[in-house]
Amino acid sequence: MTDEFPDVHKKVLRNSFKLNRVGIRNVRKPVTVNRPNKTVTLIPTIDIFVDLPSTLRGSHMSRNIEVVNEVLDNIVREPVASIEDLSEIIATRLLDRHEYATTAEVHMRADYFMDKQTFSGTPCLENYVLLAESRATRGEGVVKRIGVEAIGMTACPCAQETILKVHEDDGHDVPQEVPGVSHNQRNVATLVMDVPDGADVDADILIEILEGAFSAPTREVLKRKDEAAIIVHAHKNPKFVEDVVRDVLRTVLERFPELPDDVRITVQSESEESIHKHDAFAERRTTVGELKR
Amino acid sequence: MTDEFPDVHKKVLRNSFKLNRVGIRNVRKPVTVNRPNKTVTLIPTIDIFVDLPSTLRGSHMSRNIEVVNEVLDNIVREPVASIEDLSEIIATRLLDRHEYATTAEVHMRADYFMDKQTFSGTPCLENYVLLAESRATRGEGVVKRIGVEAIGMTACPCAQETILKVHEDDGHDVPQEVPGVSHNQRNVATLVMDVPDGADVDADILIEILEGAFSAPTREVLKRKDEAAIIVHAHKNPKFVEDVVRDVLRTVLERFPELPDDVRITVQSESEESIHKHDAFAERRTTVGELKR
Amino acid sequence: MTDEFPDVHKKVLRNSFKLNRVGIRNVRKPVTVNRPNKTVTLIPTIDIFVDLPSTLRGSHMSRNIEVVNEVLDNIVREPVASIEDLSEIIATRLLDRHEYATTAEVHMRADYFMDKQTFSGTPCLENYVLLAESRATRGEGVVKRIGVEAIGMTACPCAQETILKVHEDDGHDVPQEVPGVSHNQRNVATLVMDVPDGADVDADILIEILEGAFSAPTREVLKRKDEAAIIVHAHKNPKFVEDVVRDVLRTVLERFPELPDDVRITVQSESEESIHKHDAFAERRTTVGELKR
Amino acid sequence: MTDEFPDVHKKVLRNSFKLNRVGIRNVRKPVTVNRPNKTVTLIPTIDIFVDLPSTLRGSHMSRNIEVVNEVLDNIVREPVASIEDLSEIIATRLLDRHEYATTAEVHMRADYFMDKQTFSGTPCLENYVLLAESRATRGEGVVKRIGVEAIGMTACPCAQETILKVHEDDGHDVPQEVPGVSHNQRNVATLVMDVPDGADVDADILIEILEGAFSAPTREVLKRKDEAAIIVHAHKNPKFVEDVVRDVLRTVLERFPELPDDVRITVQSESEESIHKHDAFAERRTTVGELKR
Repeated sequence: MTDEFPDVHKKVLRNSFKLNRVGIRNVRKPVTVNRPNKTVTLIPTIDIFVDLPSTLRGSHMSRNIEVVNEVLDNIVREPVASIEDLSEIIATRLLDRHEYATTAEVHMRADYFMDKQTFSGTPCLENYVLLAESRATRGEGVVKRIGVEAIGMTACPCAQETILKVHEDDGHDVPQEVPGVSHNQRNVATLVMDVPDGADVDADILIEILEGAFSAPTREVLKRKDEAAIIVHAHKNPKFVEDVVRDVLRTVLERFPELPDDVRITVQSESEESIHKHDAFAERRTTVGELKR
Repeated sequence: MTDEFPDVHKKVLRNSFKLNRVGIRNVRKPVTVNRPNKTVTLIPTIDIFVDLPSTLRGSHMSRNIEVVNEVLDNIVREPVASIEDLSEIIATRLLDRHEYATTAEVHMRADYFMDKQTFSGTPCLENYVLLAESRATRGEGVVKRIGVEAIGMTACPCAQETILKVHEDDGHDVPQEVPGVSHNQRNVATLVMDVPDGADVDADILIEILEGAFSAPTREVLKRKDEAAIIVHAHKNPKFVEDVVRDVLRTVLERFPELPDDVRITVQSESEESIHKHDAFAERRTTVGELKR
Repeated sequence: MTDEFPDVHKKVLRNSFKLNRVGIRNVRKPVTVNRPNKTVTLIPTIDIFVDLPSTLRGSHMSRNIEVVNEVLDNIVREPVASIEDLSEIIATRLLDRHEYATTAEVHMRADYFMDKQTFSGTPCLENYVLLAESRATRGEGVVKRIGVEAIGMTACPCAQETILKVHEDDGHDVPQEVPGVSHNQRNVATLVMDVPDGADVDADILIEILEGAFSAPTREVLKRKDEAAIIVHAHKNPKFVEDVVRDVLRTVLERFPELPDDVRITVQSESEESIHKHDAFAERRTTVGELKR
Repeated sequence: MTDEFPDVHKKVLRNSFKLNRVGIRNVRKPVTVNRPNKTVTLIPTIDIFVDLPSTLRGSHMSRNIEVVNEVLDNIVREPVASIEDLSEIIATRLLDRHEYATTAEVHMRADYFMDKQTFSGTPCLENYVLLAESRATRGEGVVKRIGVEAIGMTACPCAQETILKVHEDDGHDVPQEVPGVSHNQRNVATLVMDVPDGADVDADILIEILEGAFSAPTREVLKRKDEAAIIVHAHKNPKFVEDVVRDVLRTVLERFPELPDDVRITVQSESEESIHKHDAFAERRTTVGELKR
């Protein structure tokens, strides 16, 4: 029946241009992921693209959602361990269904919650973001990427030293053990990297790496003692946005010593400066090979 | 010519419901406002509504933009001093043009810039938000409201005292003049109030009131000395979100002692807590009469 | 140990102002809700407030999260059927924990997915938004509100008639059964209403009411025939934003004939006009009693 | 005086990593630009970055704002014609001031208004977005980019043909001159391209190119006749997101036949589909040389 309709998409074009990405954005779907010790429901926002040759007028948009639905239906029988695995499966299937395409791309972004503790051991549930990207190329396989985003706290090392100097100049004697005041604020850090075949790169570890790179992590429940502990810790561990990015890079190399040289890594850190109305930002886009040099 | 078209809006309904607000949202227009010593170009986002009786199917939407354009064209000849004055003129004209309406509402929101200084006198240009609202009622005149939004810095008084206590318990002797560390962050404060006829309530003064209620204002250019001064000032002047709201209320009463009792005031303060992923918030909705009691 | 710390919040104030709302915003938490035939995981964004008397300097912010966590922990043993029930439980507990407060408010907003069908019966999963609000007043109980938000399609009745007239004037004879072109677009409709004690007001029904008030519902998967059916349906059923609001009001009265007169209802409809860069909007804020008059 | 403070940024690091971008984001500043026949006030949001060698701990963040302020102060004496020229000047000065940097980047985004007309000649003021990017490399000069974003209307060619076929199958005879119904919606199109030295690439022309590629442009004021004209025009000129991107590419080559082969061009088109809750998207990233092949 459908075949009887005129197929405007299939119209053959002459002297036209190919397109790099044609597809749909901002699809939302609940997804169940089987983690080692728990089953997690995520609600990712999904973007899906394939390329389009210069000779075809339109891409078959509805096939994109159909592929997502088929893959999600199948999860019930064959559970997946992560949204990056899911993005890889969807990207592969997209090439099957869009026979004219040579590349397929899937991007996902989802809120994620982890059980954490305060310094004194009070349990709390913290909010992070998971990112996933897969790019399938016909005849060449899939490049899969994993990413995480975390909110932490940074205290400025420069202002802290300046103010200590001011106190000294004023003749005030501050004990060594007492950290000096500084401006501190929310910092949003992001780490995105390729996952080579067979590599075991887990989002929970990446979040741990980001949290370890801040002046201090932030926690939802903080009674007096914990609040004091976090703030003192942050002021004994002041960080620029530059420091956060470099500490993440360093720890990735330490935690994943086996990563091949061609693994791409992007790390960003953005501080919502408490003393300014604008933000401070640092970024490195590189490969493991470049970092090791 | 237009009259020959069928007028679906004018269709008479039976047994239907009146509507409180029908109109257009997210209109953007550059507007020139004549301030005492300068001419300022603002680009407000404008929402415009009238009510609709139960007997009419549709409001004449295109008249809303026409009224805005007529009023803005006229500004060239008769300059206005503020966007709240502009909102009042537009609301009044809306009732003229929508003969079936009994109320008309105009809301405006625009970025605004003021020349400020750091503690040491370095000039800088700071970013604020202006708000304006007018509600015209047929036969009753217009109620006009002015509002401002400002970003500043708050340092937490509670964490500061806790940490001082911890240092004391640990036997560290901190000089009285040296402020203790605390968490600090961006705070967004908002003040919206009625402007009674003839009252002189200026946005620049309201912004000054908001900035005075933070632990410290924030500035775009901060060389070492100024950065230190702002941070030390904030830590000698720690504030909860509750304190910010109350200090704004107190200062409004002091600065505008003549305001009538029925003037409505709303003050909000929201802190992007540096130790949490969520925000802290305080609000008071009241009248001058209630505050004076 | 905690008790030994100075309690800055408890500081007694003189000549200060009470505050209407003090609390936290933008808390995110996964929540499991037991629906009649399924268990659903939602990730609401939660705002929590209590009021604060003029004599107290600060509210105990950390108690808010503690109450949420206790209530969510308890869900495992005593499942809840909806986020509005959850908001009611949280609001009630907040008054227990903030002994100085006279009111407590909880607002929740969460993405929600429902199994729907296209005209031809293809199953698809559609995205909506759930809203919930509860306000507890000491000694007076809780007022609970439920809300939903849905995206649909509106086609403009006025432009359609004008164009038909233009065709007629040009001597073109269009068959009665063939709907005329018009502009159509996404419309976001919202319905929020009180839930009186014992009333059975379910979010799924409210979503059905909203979807029935558009020119047509929108669906994620649309093969040719279904796409044609939805568009033809929308053009045979053209709607202004005003029509959407009124049809929702009418259907609420029909579907819930037993609602008491004091139930408050707010209905909004906003069209992202395809022929303009701004949006069209209609709203009614009323009570069941007013509507029935 | 400043020199006496400890300079934490200048701290020399060993075995650390270089960073690609360190700077500030979301700076807002009013800017006056001298267009051929008018002076325009824009309020761009500005991002500013330089790179940082592996041996330096921190970038001098405050120099970024200082450079912006110096350049803007100088505009009074030496007016600029566009924000892309402004971004070029700022990027060049950043390298002067950050003596350790090898690259500097400036991104700007600003609302922009142009006088346009409806089909019948009614004047109206339409809202667009200007984009500008400059990247200066020490010893190699600056690569400057210009961009524009416009909102228009697209009507779907595929649904239109399907529905015509349905009408035919049902035996309805629709006159050739009467366009068939389809879904239509807001489309946001973006064009960003390099501006080679000496080339005359004006934002107003680029906006004209985008507006010409939609099914129809959108206008703020539309009386009956103009509304009908725009909708009929759109339905006689139906476009996929793919068509919009290709028509922009084609027109850029026609309007700027002299552009060198290495000029990079990115064109995007995104439709807020009226029949779906998700968006449709198409993109080409290419060079003039590739397009001409």
